[in-house]
Amino acid sequence: MSNKRKLSFAALLDRHAQVAVHVGLRPIPGQQIILSAPIEALPLVRLICKHAYMAGASLVTPLLTDGECTLARYRHASDASFDIASAWLSDGTAAAFKEGAARIAISGDNPGLLAGQDPSRVSRAAAAAGKASKPAMEYVTTSRVNWSICAYATRSWAKTAFPELSEKAAVAKLWRAIFAASRADAPDPVAAWMEHNAVLKSRVKILNDRNFASLRFRGPGTDLLVGLADGHKWAGGSSTTPGGAQFNANVPTEEVFTTPHSRRVDGWVSSTKPLSLHGNIVEGIRVRFESGKIVEASAAKGESALLNLIKTDEGASHLGEIALVPHSSPISASGLLFFNTLFDENAACHMAVGQSYAKCMHDGVNLSKDDLIARGANQSNVHVDWMIGSGAVDVDGICPDGTVVPVMRGCEWV
Amino acid sequence: MSNKRKLSFAALLDRHAQVAVHVGLRPIPGQQIILSAPIEALPLVRLICKHAYMAGASLVTPLLTDGECTLARYRHASDASFDIASAWLSDGTAAAFKEGAARIAISGDNPGLLAGQDPSRVSRAAAAAGKASKPAMEYVTTSRVNWSICAYATRSWAKTAFPELSEKAAVAKLWRAIFAASRADAPDPVAAWMEHNAVLKSRVKILNDRNFASLRFRGPGTDLLVGLADGHKWAGGSSTTPGGAQFNANVPTEEVFTTPHSRRVDGWVSSTKPLSLHGNIVEGIRVRFESGKIVEASAAKGESALLNLIKTDEGASHLGEIALVPHSSPISASGLLFFNTLFDENAACHMAVGQSYAKCMHDGVNLSKDDLIARGANQSNVHVDWMIGSGAVDVDGICPDGTVVPVMRGCEWV
Repeated sequence: MSNKRKLSFAALLDRHAQVAVHVGLRPIPGQQIILSAPIEALPLVRLICKHAYMAGASLVTPLLTDGECTLARYRHASDASFDIASAWLSDGTAAAFKEGAARIAISGDNPGLLAGQDPSRVSRAAAAAGKASKPAMEYVTTSRVNWSICAYATRSWAKTAFPELSEKAAVAKLWRAIFAASRADAPDPVAAWMEHNAVLKSRVKILNDRNFASLRFRGPGTDLLVGLADGHKWAGGSSTTPGGAQFNANVPTEEVFTTPHSRRVDGWVSSTKPLSLHGNIVEGIRVRFESGKIVEASAAKGESALLNLIKTDEGASHLGEIALVPHSSPISASGLLFFNTLFDENAACHMAVGQSYAKCMHDGVNLSKDDLIARGANQSNVHVDWMIGSGAVDVDGICPDGTVVPVMRGCEWV
Repeated sequence: MSNKRKLSFAALLDRHAQVAVHVGLRPIPGQQIILSAPIEALPLVRLICKHAYMAGASLVTPLLTDGECTLARYRHASDASFDIASAWLSDGTAAAFKEGAARIAISGDNPGLLAGQDPSRVSRAAAAAGKASKPAMEYVTTSRVNWSICAYATRSWAKTAFPELSEKAAVAKLWRAIFAASRADAPDPVAAWMEHNAVLKSRVKILNDRNFASLRFRGPGTDLLVGLADGHKWAGGSSTTPGGAQFNANVPTEEVFTTPHSRRVDGWVSSTKPLSLHGNIVEGIRVRFESGKIVEASAAKGESALLNLIKTDEGASHLGEIALVPHSSPISASGLLFFNTLFDENAACHMAVGQSYAKCMHDGVNLSKDDLIARGANQSNVHVDWMIGSGAVDVDGICPDGTVVPVMRGCEWV
């Protein structure tokens, strides 16, 4: 009964754009939209413009980025350049959010663009950009505006994910995976998403009812106790702005996630998938936490990018998010490795160092920063996820009274 | 002795980028640069990034625009959209200028992109954008930052200029004209520009020494007396910021120009070339001024775009610039019609309705807005040039004592 095989690429791309607009962002009539994308994603940018205007957006402003322009900086700029960011643009974006604008981003940058560049420059530039964009990102991390990220199969990303294929075949394979994950190939993509959101919400409800004090992850190279923040709240599926607007921040999304306690994480944890970090690929991460802080860290590949990340600021060496994803999630079941967090984080349990999400705290949007910190909600200019789940990882929940409840076995829901 | 024939297109484009950076913008080491361009100009964007970083720019932020995204708005947005502008981006740009950023723009948009769209929507959108960008544009019109415009031969522009040619031939012909005008094909482009700037400066000196009270233009359909502002100053060639940075605001430039008196312009004037105005082509403009204000206006083609322009605000029906360009200027001598003001305004004497330039007033940067208005320097959210010179137009200068001095005959310097 599926109509999958009948849809042309153009029809699938148009449906993908419809999902980005009608499931992901859901613009409010009259709302301005800031659309950031790599320049290669222009065909999707145009379709999102079309559907956003049809949905009542007042003005869509595309901000297109080009990897070659970024590389020109690393090749030709003076060293002092790498502590500079376009704060004027970040502040403008924050002002737009304050006035009610929404944000949609297309993910697809070359995961290895900056491999071979000086890692300390890469992390200095990322730190400067993170600091400059903090006021704008606060609107995003607190869900004060509707925002969403979707994907576009650029050639460089496709070749990174599927190096054994020709560029054309790699792009085609990546698009099939993207359309499956965004449900663009479903008979009724929007209805499929409403159903999927309901499943995630039921999982969120169970975890919130349990109100675990901490989670314990055990597997090869991993024995980690993750205390949860006081007043933490689980989230998953669609989000809601304070004004009541619904949106799906990530397309795809398979995770349920909450706020760890920034001072109550202890033990070893090993990454289970590579991480694309600021244009570098980092693999084989091993870190040890003590009272919430990373005190030992190494990686088999890209270690300096990791070490630079966790010293960006104090919060960058503490956790801001912990997320549960079943090993059988459709993205994981595809068996593919995407080198793109939007996909890989939806294939495995993961954690993020850096900024926590206000929506993952009870009454989080109304709490002061000091209150959030007191409850264990981490604060930072960065937020970087990496994957710690696999078929060999078990998760237990520890109740406030000390009872241990099996939550996942082989990263499948118990 | 010329090496013109030996240079490949890639070499010429790189020299064109060098002229844009080293003649046009001349970045100050450590300066941020905002680079706006149509997306098709990406090859030149990348080269300008390279040369700007090599010249010491700290960070170049490209802002790329796409005609199809603009058209999506006209095709699908609600009517209320056309009174909205991205003020957050304009304000961010103004903040960047305040902090010392420079601006470079690549001209090459499709001159007829919005032909066929509702002219009142086109001018409402332009008016909203003009109003929003006023704080940023004030840094430009007062030369408080170094800024420059250069050109890129997009396919749509080339086909508009040379409709009788194939797209490939039209693009090649337009590039030849652009490289000739930017002197990218000269043996030493930067030296050629320094020489050209000196010629323009000598012409400026003569006109400033004369200190005419008004200019009179006579030709077919034209008999116009243009009073000059009290304390007007002629400009041409390179400009200087208050901090002493030199730049060439337009590449190419052949004009010397000054500030008309906004309340002392009388008579009829006819345009001598088509004007590309907000994506519409306007031809055969005839307007009549009375005490500085346009009181009658018509056009053989695109009339509503013209009428909408001059009612944008009070200043849009008064002159803000008058410019003299010899009919034998290299761009005019090429015999080409470009449908792009950066080129066509350098082929003929022209005038502009709207905002005046502070640099065309003695001590203009330090005068208050009220002082500028009292002296006749027009204020508006728009600045649109159109061409009024041709081989059949004569220009006289009228001295403060009433003496009439022939300035141009057949638009050649006397």
